Amino acid sequence: MSEPPLSVVRTVADLRAHVRTWKARGERVGFVPTMGALHEGHLSLVRLARERADHVVASVFVNPTQFGPNEDFDAYPRTEARDAELLASAGCELLFAPDVAEMYAPGFSTTVTVAGVSEPLDGAARPGHFAGVATVVSKLLMQAAPDVAVFGEKDYQQLQVIRRLVRDLDIPVEIVGGPTARAPDGLALSSRNAYLSVEERAAAPALARALTAAAEQLRAGAAVDQTEAQARAALEAAGFRKIDYVEVRAADDLARLGPGPVAAPARILAAAFLGRTRLIDNIAV
Amino acid sequence: MSEPPLSVVRTVADLRAHVRTWKARGERVGFVPTMGALHEGHLSLVRLARERADHVVASVFVNPTQFGPNEDFDAYPRTEARDAELLASAGCELLFAPDVAEMYAPGFSTTVTVAGVSEPLDGAARPGHFAGVATVVSKLLMQAAPDVAVFGEKDYQQLQVIRRLVRDLDIPVEIVGGPTARAPDGLALSSRNAYLSVEERAAAPALARALTAAAEQLRAGAAVDQTEAQARAALEAAGFRKIDYVEVRAADDLARLGPGPVAAPARILAAAFLGRTRLIDNIAV
Repeated sequence: MSEPPLSVVRTVADLRAHVRTWKARGERVGFVPTMGALHEGHLSLVRLARERADHVVASVFVNPTQFGPNEDFDAYPRTEARDAELLASAGCELLFAPDVAEMYAPGFSTTVTVAGVSEPLDGAARPGHFAGVATVVSKLLMQAAPDVAVFGEKDYQQLQVIRRLVRDLDIPVEIVGGPTARAPDGLALSSRNAYLSVEERAAAPALARALTAAAEQLRAGAAVDQTEAQARAALEAAGFRKIDYVEVRAADDLARLGPGPVAAPARILAAAFLGRTRLIDNIAV
Repeated sequence: MSEPPLSVVRTVADLRAHVRTWKARGERVGFVPTMGALHEGHLSLVRLARERADHVVASVFVNPTQFGPNEDFDAYPRTEARDAELLASAGCELLFAPDVAEMYAPGFSTTVTVAGVSEPLDGAARPGHFAGVATVVSKLLMQAAPDVAVFGEKDYQQLQVIRRLVRDLDIPVEIVGGPTARAPDGLALSSRNAYLSVEERAAAPALARALTAAAEQLRAGAAVDQTEAQARAALEAAGFRKIDYVEVRAADDLARLGPGPVAAPARILAAAFLGRTRLIDNIAV
């Protein structure tokens, strides 16, 4: 069966014109915001959105405000033609690909911040990152006005920050988390995996393995502090250089758990460097 | 002619049910957010909204997060039954009057901040005030989803902060400023005028008089610094105790002007105390 053609729009006005037409017919709109460099993980989110809506809009926007001054904004992979083909193949009908000036006009000066859930982990390791995310996601949700928006659990803290801000600001959209897509050896799919050397790619699955082992230990009643220490040692042994965090946190608000066994829904999350590439992953406990 | 009856709703769900019904019929919705203690100034905003929409929703919510710790949140006048009568008389069909728990559920942790335009004047005099305003207005606009929302020019800086945040976050609503309603002697109508003693009420029109005289001088080519000094002296002579500011600012982003004559659209704004009551006013130059 041939897929419907994919339209590409670059302005908020054109995006809204498409969405308005669908909504006027009473049809549901799903939305998958991305930074491009798409892989099977993104496509699984598009398919999830397609199951819950009549039309799927994706955005590709490498958002400068969520990168720190020493991060990889300029180097971040940009592959729009290929992204468009992949989106069409997964059932996405509309790609919103604005430039930076369309998103941040001169005089732009508003910031959305989320206290609490955005503060530990990547919030501590990447100052300003989640304010950039919360602000651009608020904008994208206002622009696309979807009925449902899908975000990957791969960026678990981001997902929880977005759930919080959507609830707090009463943005009329349902937020759905999509399971992390993984390579056969367990490595979470990520656009940043493209940075890995052959040797680093071979070492990378140790991250998912360490988290899976930790989650099993916790389910068996192990203490949080010992489990975190063992996972950290496993990462170091596998060649991870700088470990930003390996922590067990409450699944909803990412509050600190431990030092003893966990009693409530929890998540174990990690961020660590292989060479110059920062990988993140997380697993439900 | 009898007015249509006014419905009162206290939950976001009930508010949205009313608005959805109207929108499904293709009718336009106007919105006037207030803190209650309504007077002719608010009613003029309701009538302005009615001119631009098929239905007008007003909200009455004394928002705790925009009051400082030493301000008048507890004392702020609450007169809902009378407010409802006045709203109905002005053509408002729906009053949204949530309690604090409906607006700020446990765990609420999101803040909308606007840099630049929210920083001087009341932003400097009332730390945190405009973050409280920007956050609650963002919520109210998401809750009511109006086509047009009307805010009074009496709170001119607030109006400009809201214009900025609506543009920056791409909230799909038209923002309209309503002219300041005044007593016959020129005093800008304000819910806080109820705090004034008889003597203070007699002195209060000096604020509008000083700003009007200043605007005339500026139009005639007077320098900003001298005009501000004269207006300040006039307020002190009239018995104003503490003067938070009397300043000439750019009309759009409230950037500092002067010290010489003004060349672009400007606004002169003042905030000063009569006894314990803080009055604000502003006039176009």
